[in-house]
Amino acid sequence: MELEKLSALFEQMTLEDKFGQMTQTTGEHFLEMPNKEELVETGPSMEDLGFNAENIYQIGSVLGVSSTAVINEIQRTYLKKSRLKIPLLFMHDAIHGYRTTFPIPLALASSFDRELVKDVAEAVAEEMRATGLHVNFSPMVDLSRDPRWGRVMEGFGEDSFLAGELGKSMIEGYQGSENGEILNDHVVACLKHFVAYGAPEAGKDYASVDMSEKEFYGFYARPYEIALSANPRFVMASFNSLNGEPVTASRYLMNDLLREKFGFDGLNISDWGAVGELKNHGVADSDKEAGDLAMSAGIDIEMLSNTFLTYGSKILEEKPELLEQIDLAVWKILCLKNELGLFEQPFASEESEKTVVRQEKFIQLARKSALESTVLLKNNQNILPVNRKDNLILIGPFAKTQDLLGNWACKGKETETISFEQGFKNQNCPIKAYETLDEVPDKELKYATQVIITIGEASNWSGEGHSSSDLEIADDQKELIRSLKGMGKKIIAIGLSGRPLALQSVIADLDALLWTWYLGNEMGNAVAQLVLGIERPAGRLPMSFPRVSAQVPIRYNELRSGRPANESTYSSRYQDIEIGPLFPFGFGLQYDEFSIDDVSLSKFEINQDDVIEIHVRISNHSQYDSKFTLNLFFEDPIARIVRPVRELLDFVKLDLKAKHSEDYSFKFTLADLSYADNKGTKVIENGPIHFYINDLSKARISCNVKLK
Amino acid sequence: MELEKLSALFEQMTLEDKFGQMTQTTGEHFLEMPNKEELVETGPSMEDLGFNAENIYQIGSVLGVSSTAVINEIQRTYLKKSRLKIPLLFMHDAIHGYRTTFPIPLALASSFDRELVKDVAEAVAEEMRATGLHVNFSPMVDLSRDPRWGRVMEGFGEDSFLAGELGKSMIEGYQGSENGEILNDHVVACLKHFVAYGAPEAGKDYASVDMSEKEFYGFYARPYEIALSANPRFVMASFNSLNGEPVTASRYLMNDLLREKFGFDGLNISDWGAVGELKNHGVADSDKEAGDLAMSAGIDIEMLSNTFLTYGSKILEEKPELLEQIDLAVWKILCLKNELGLFEQPFASEESEKTVVRQEKFIQLARKSALESTVLLKNNQNILPVNRKDNLILIGPFAKTQDLLGNWACKGKETETISFEQGFKNQNCPIKAYETLDEVPDKELKYATQVIITIGEASNWSGEGHSSSDLEIADDQKELIRSLKGMGKKIIAIGLSGRPLALQSVIADLDALLWTWYLGNEMGNAVAQLVLGIERPAGRLPMSFPRVSAQVPIRYNELRSGRPANESTYSSRYQDIEIGPLFPFGFGLQYDEFSIDDVSLSKFEINQDDVIEIHVRISNHSQYDSKFTLNLFFEDPIARIVRPVRELLDFVKLDLKAKHSEDYSFKFTLADLSYADNKGTKVIENGPIHFYINDLSKARISCNVKLK
Repeated sequence: MELEKLSALFEQMTLEDKFGQMTQTTGEHFLEMPNKEELVETGPSMEDLGFNAENIYQIGSVLGVSSTAVINEIQRTYLKKSRLKIPLLFMHDAIHGYRTTFPIPLALASSFDRELVKDVAEAVAEEMRATGLHVNFSPMVDLSRDPRWGRVMEGFGEDSFLAGELGKSMIEGYQGSENGEILNDHVVACLKHFVAYGAPEAGKDYASVDMSEKEFYGFYARPYEIALSANPRFVMASFNSLNGEPVTASRYLMNDLLREKFGFDGLNISDWGAVGELKNHGVADSDKEAGDLAMSAGIDIEMLSNTFLTYGSKILEEKPELLEQIDLAVWKILCLKNELGLFEQPFASEESEKTVVRQEKFIQLARKSALESTVLLKNNQNILPVNRKDNLILIGPFAKTQDLLGNWACKGKETETISFEQGFKNQNCPIKAYETLDEVPDKELKYATQVIITIGEASNWSGEGHSSSDLEIADDQKELIRSLKGMGKKIIAIGLSGRPLALQSVIADLDALLWTWYLGNEMGNAVAQLVLGIERPAGRLPMSFPRVSAQVPIRYNELRSGRPANESTYSSRYQDIEIGPLFPFGFGLQYDEFSIDDVSLSKFEINQDDVIEIHVRISNHSQYDSKFTLNLFFEDPIARIVRPVRELLDFVKLDLKAKHSEDYSFKFTLADLSYADNKGTKVIENGPIHFYINDLSKARISCNVKLK
Repeated sequence: MELEKLSALFEQMTLEDKFGQMTQTTGEHFLEMPNKEELVETGPSMEDLGFNAENIYQIGSVLGVSSTAVINEIQRTYLKKSRLKIPLLFMHDAIHGYRTTFPIPLALASSFDRELVKDVAEAVAEEMRATGLHVNFSPMVDLSRDPRWGRVMEGFGEDSFLAGELGKSMIEGYQGSENGEILNDHVVACLKHFVAYGAPEAGKDYASVDMSEKEFYGFYARPYEIALSANPRFVMASFNSLNGEPVTASRYLMNDLLREKFGFDGLNISDWGAVGELKNHGVADSDKEAGDLAMSAGIDIEMLSNTFLTYGSKILEEKPELLEQIDLAVWKILCLKNELGLFEQPFASEESEKTVVRQEKFIQLARKSALESTVLLKNNQNILPVNRKDNLILIGPFAKTQDLLGNWACKGKETETISFEQGFKNQNCPIKAYETLDEVPDKELKYATQVIITIGEASNWSGEGHSSSDLEIADDQKELIRSLKGMGKKIIAIGLSGRPLALQSVIADLDALLWTWYLGNEMGNAVAQLVLGIERPAGRLPMSFPRVSAQVPIRYNELRSGRPANESTYSSRYQDIEIGPLFPFGFGLQYDEFSIDDVSLSKFEINQDDVIEIHVRISNHSQYDSKFTLNLFFEDPIARIVRPVRELLDFVKLDLKAKHSEDYSFKFTLADLSYADNKGTKVIENGPIHFYINDLSKARISCNVKLK
């Protein structure tokens, strides 16, 4: 539609029409065909939400609808009954795949691979758009150091730079561009949840969040600052309060920080019911006040409560100055619908859904990403990869199941998911699979040289609302390990979870441990290939694994202590467990031998305007082509404030041919070494900076900051 | 000494003399008599600290010395060799008693009894002063919500008002006055640890602390603000960094907040080694810089590092403006020594030590406070108190031990401590005691109608440096409970700890549970009297008991959530455990029946200038004289910021005669209902306020704030 026509349309809109565009609900209210329940997410009834047969046709967008036929039906019904006939925008949560399921985001983060994350996002976008969906409520870049929080599965772990960078890649993948343009066959990204949602008190989802400004700017806001540079067209406000202020009602966060400081000029949507929930927070005593607070803060679209449409006009009477902001929001919504071509073609093609969804290239990518998202945590005596000629058995709760998708699997299907058992079969490996030890015939058990067990948590134990105080594996899994150990078996464990688990109580009894999170449709194939050595694991942990459940929050980048942890009682540690996590951020073993042969720095004395380079030479000594992640950490040993013991400065995933060396140069400036002070201002001071490649103890090189 | 003479002495002081007064070390360096090791706390050697045979005699104070003879010997040696002969000030950690041991502070807090706390402090002061000690490094009012932190035993729990009030009472007890005057037979109080030390990341002692200004002013700084009104003459700076700034180096915290905002005009001492540890924090790259930072922040006395005396003159050369502050600090030190009469009589009387220490009145008070510090957590079918004629046996790791003093017991003696076994004997109760179930003769076990077991953690598992990730009782204790339950025994448990423990895994198997913390010398007598019904338990928890170790931090006054915990998955809770703590703050059962008969409010519409009264009528329906705690909570349901679900407004411990009713009036003003906003400003707004007496669900009354 030409801008002039769009403008004319805008001029026709009543205030109610505008507030309707600023409101989102579930698709069920528009559904006339029966038996579509499984394709439409349901919420409160129209009556409970306060919609009626008229104003429901002023709504601007719906969420949670699947399949082109249903999307088209809803659009058709809506357009028939709507006065202005502005097509609906369709949004959905395709967190790690729409129909083809990819690894959960925490697993994808283990790849440390920007390109891979972008490719996955692009595939998800293609399936969504072909189906008729326009906006994906993804990525989530909420930093979290607390595996009790169930939503860590949706994010990229404990480091703000990693989370920001992968969030950025994901946005670029969804939208198909780096500048915010929505390319054909792509969708709009909705960056969420702004902001600091990942630090709820004691890891309980929806609990209040409290932190200093320094911590906020330096860590929790930073992934947003980075990811926003990819121009996501939507941002979602988070459920939590931050320092006593519900984010959804915070003018400071929604406007001053997000728009003015971080430069976001897209649309800001609330989370499900969050505007109405301002009453529960105790900052609003009525729906009208809740709507007023959210609208005044800068929320453009209210999801699944209905205060804007119901009370918007009254609020505007009292605050006429809000009109400009409302008009801007509505205009942006219209422009986005126009940019997506909805006025010309509001319907999707059922034919293209069929040809696009579940294409072989997506399945291949699902397998590739599953391979890259796996982390080898233990491998005593190089027991992995196994020899397929050995007598192998596979035992455990996940040995045969196709329920391997993880939470938030959208339209992913278990029936299209490769079980571990099937995965080994597909590799022509004649492994027998059992869910419990009791099922294994005595003879088979006797002759098994190695036992592969599946341990971890069920796929619905993580995700939204699924906070857990217990991070250990279930007692029957521990019992399985003890029994096998008692029989003198070598135990190779495959670990599944949506969060870091606490494995201290079993780790000593495992000979090998391959952490696989939830890897999507191709999980069984990928794991079988890795276990058999057809592929080589190269993932690294994006989040530390605590020893026990109560060793949380935990992070590699903790602040220095006046009494650093050591053997002394009077040092910063727990007396009942060893120092540090069981497996730290960045940890990951590989089958093959690599060496870092050279680390050099382009300048040893650096100042404000310099671009600094760190050159690394890395060699693959094995006869296998493989991948290797370089993590560049830095440490500022003396500063005006207490700084972390180390911080991730950059990372890269390299392809390394067999028996080959590669050179790589990290480039950065002084600004990348700065910290946010108590006022959020970025500061860098004179003095030494130490750099480390991967393991802290090795490959250190230092320079000196000398400001002009 | 007359002020004129004191002033003349001051004028004679060199810069080194001044920095010496501002330095504290251990007494060992002055000890010429051998075999006094157990009476003198030792630290780094003179050489390691950088003292020499000359400047060690410029030192102003020593810490950790016990017994008059040794104190006098140190003083004598010092005065002999010191040029100016300014007597040493002697300081010590008498956290819950000097020689007579009282309940640990967390236990004392369970009494909710200001007068009791004051009486105990006065007794401690009397023993200390008689011995020749001048300053007690107590009270600690560090709020903590994390029982993993070992130092919760030294504090008053999770509520800022309770901690502040009891800290204030303790200061008044130590000093003998409300205005800071140090009465005869009293000691100087050192309020510690300023500030926010109780919130180390993940409950690890000495770890960094991070929180918003709102949280800081509203909760963690508040106990100090309250306790400082009792005019402690010393404050100790805490080890931790707060929001990136080590407290010991923070001019803002040490001066702007403590002195200017909170009005403290006494002496500010560092914690052990904390000035030197600024290097470990990474804010100083040398001892000189560490000293500079601490001195510039406003530390008056450096404990157990030696940067002031070594580098003070150089620092002063660079920052001559510090001289005024240094002179003021030294002048205050001299004045305090003079006020304590040290110039006239630097020595203590060995005779008075003998007559004062371990007086019967202290032992009586130790028993009274032990009785009041005990909390009845469970009492199914009123199984407690027991009938002494029943066949009783006493089992468990603490059944016979005299190691019941708890950590930080100063000069308390196990040999002077009443074991549980002895306690029952002293009540002529013929109970048999065993440490393990195996020791119990079959016949005896068979006929035992009730089994009293002792569970909990050893006394050295809490305290400084003793952070623990595991809050459950040991496996053998769990096994004891399971075995007895399997035999069908009724189990009465006595729980010992220096922190809240996580008891979910055993609570269902216990018929009664009496939580006794560590109660000091008279523990066995007090517990026997309570179990036998000679005395009535009336304590209440000052800190919530989590269900499991990983349900922390935890507190009764959590902030409201947009999705309050309920049966829904999508609410603020853990999915694997019940909602809320096992036993909340304020919880405590009693043997007798009480009722709150009337709650009334003096005004239902209140404004800024009003004093509001809440009248409560409480009745004791039993035939026993008893005590009863009234906790007045309030809730501000709608405010501009998210407020706690409830907050303690005031508390009182009442004596209630058998079959009698009492009236009590709480008085407060609007300011007491205010909150600290993000800037630390206290705010109160129009709207309803709800009040509750004790249990949240009962006795609610509301008023309306209407500001003029």
